[in-house]
Amino acid sequence: MAENNAGAKEVKELGEFGLIEHLTKDIKLKHKSSIKGVGDDAAVLNYSNKQIVVTTDLLTEGVHFDLMYVPIKHLGYKAVMINLSDVYAMNATPKQITVSIAVSGKFSLDAIELLYEGIHLACESYNVDLIGGDTCSSLTGLTISITAIGEVDKGKEVYRNGAKIGDLICVSGDLGGAYAGLQVLEREKAVYKVNPNSQPDMSAYDYVLERQLKPEARIDIVEELAKINIIPTAMIDISDGLSSEIIHICKQSKCGAKISEAKLPIHDQTIAVAEEFDLDPTLFAMNGGEDYELLFTLNPEDAAKANQIADISIIGEILPEAEGIKLHGKGEGFTHIKAQGWNAYEE
Amino acid sequence: MAENNAGAKEVKELGEFGLIEHLTKDIKLKHKSSIKGVGDDAAVLNYSNKQIVVTTDLLTEGVHFDLMYVPIKHLGYKAVMINLSDVYAMNATPKQITVSIAVSGKFSLDAIELLYEGIHLACESYNVDLIGGDTCSSLTGLTISITAIGEVDKGKEVYRNGAKIGDLICVSGDLGGAYAGLQVLEREKAVYKVNPNSQPDMSAYDYVLERQLKPEARIDIVEELAKINIIPTAMIDISDGLSSEIIHICKQSKCGAKISEAKLPIHDQTIAVAEEFDLDPTLFAMNGGEDYELLFTLNPEDAAKANQIADISIIGEILPEAEGIKLHGKGEGFTHIKAQGWNAYEE
Repeated sequence: MAENNAGAKEVKELGEFGLIEHLTKDIKLKHKSSIKGVGDDAAVLNYSNKQIVVTTDLLTEGVHFDLMYVPIKHLGYKAVMINLSDVYAMNATPKQITVSIAVSGKFSLDAIELLYEGIHLACESYNVDLIGGDTCSSLTGLTISITAIGEVDKGKEVYRNGAKIGDLICVSGDLGGAYAGLQVLEREKAVYKVNPNSQPDMSAYDYVLERQLKPEARIDIVEELAKINIIPTAMIDISDGLSSEIIHICKQSKCGAKISEAKLPIHDQTIAVAEEFDLDPTLFAMNGGEDYELLFTLNPEDAAKANQIADISIIGEILPEAEGIKLHGKGEGFTHIKAQGWNAYEE
Repeated sequence: MAENNAGAKEVKELGEFGLIEHLTKDIKLKHKSSIKGVGDDAAVLNYSNKQIVVTTDLLTEGVHFDLMYVPIKHLGYKAVMINLSDVYAMNATPKQITVSIAVSGKFSLDAIELLYEGIHLACESYNVDLIGGDTCSSLTGLTISITAIGEVDKGKEVYRNGAKIGDLICVSGDLGGAYAGLQVLEREKAVYKVNPNSQPDMSAYDYVLERQLKPEARIDIVEELAKINIIPTAMIDISDGLSSEIIHICKQSKCGAKISEAKLPIHDQTIAVAEEFDLDPTLFAMNGGEDYELLFTLNPEDAAKANQIADISIIGEILPEAEGIKLHGKGEGFTHIKAQGWNAYEE
């Protein structure tokens, strides 16, 4: 749990400019495309002949994260991952991020430093320059806004709208783990509220907790695909759940899809947690969200080559639009897939 | 006053994806550099051989704006201006923005639409493409995060660190007006709290209210300077007040500065408001902030040319660092300039 309730006196003493300077003083720019980073009215970049990819996400306390159980350093790391994942989903390579935060008085300088430790670690691990941002106060809670900028060779960018009938539907990694981790954390939070002295043994949940608290963006998949000269026909990252994402691809590509339940990659621990909660693991995989895996479609001619990549599963096929978007169960039947993804506006 | 307290049922019905689609459905991309806008994991841009400029700002309700007296459409417009102003301060031209908002349940769809009307109007007026963003919910209040992206020919970008001893210090427009407007609005808010039926006559304050509620970024100054082939040696936009900004330039350029109080451009209405509040108009001009004028330094050889531009005032001169940063009063003496700008962390 983040120690974020100490006095925020130091933050006020530093002031806005002092805080930005303090949090960014050790940054060294690594990329040739990063001409000028933090410290002026704007950052300056040069991408010569590359296409530029830009994505942005806003996370608010109590809606996107709960500091009751999310360590604030992990939150910083994850906030960066969410954005990098969007860049990879364009078949692009992230190069720079800007980070803006609004914090209320309940956050100590220590807490903000830990948040930035997570952000810096993510930048380090994924070879990304932090080039700018904004630090200001809010009346309540913490808000994080990150913009990621990346590059891709012209013609190699992959949109959601390129899937063709007969294309294979693939996912990286496994699905539903982040949601399983969230279920465990929510349960422990409820227990903690009743008995603050409980010391739960979480070792049986290590995998799903890591999936929820410290997801990784799939740079490796994008690199592996490039190495064997495969460009997916369509791609999206799985932030809201497989159901929601396959619908995005089908809607934009004007096609239908068939997904085989039996082919869904689900980790043993995810299955165990689902069973513990008396829920169907398939629901976790289809609607869980926050896995930040990649969902993409391939020309069937690329299937053999794609099989060389260990961490990819072929889970279905693109159909004509009139066929709809269907999940074929392990038995005979099928169900129509509906977006059940996390809706930030539901209570 | 924004009608933001109607039921937010429609927002929930639309959901996150529906809301984004609803707010962005009429967008047409205008720039060759905007390859792909809203609707995928990321936007795609192509800047061929131009330098790219990126800036971002986060605004939170209750800290940066008060919806008691800021019409929400104006807020959308101003939020864009704040970012465009940063791009102009690099001597660059903004081309794209991303907009992320987090809104609590108290905001109706009408209110969010009005906010976006202001954003779209700003994009239209300043020839900028809205290429992406994020729309999510917050537990309380409204947060707006905007990232602006622009272009500048290599070698023409202007940083804060290029001022040289003997350079002339210039500002565009007039100073302190936005702060005067804020004083009037704060007073009317206090009156309103006591007597909600009061109908104040605000016609005597039209200029300063417009400065506060609907500031304009100085595209015209950047264009005029380019037309007569002047590249400032250093430039910054005035968001936190002249004191704070001249200190930024001096610190980064490793120099001192002398500003003449008598040369400060202050509008008659700003002076009248300052006097009404028994305050010194010079304080408004030096520390007021939010004017979004440009502060820049020029090689003295460019002075005659710069005088062709109507709305520029030469207010001082760059000195050696050891001289400090001084304001020469209308009499004999001088005072050292300290950053008194708006500090978001002060209560």
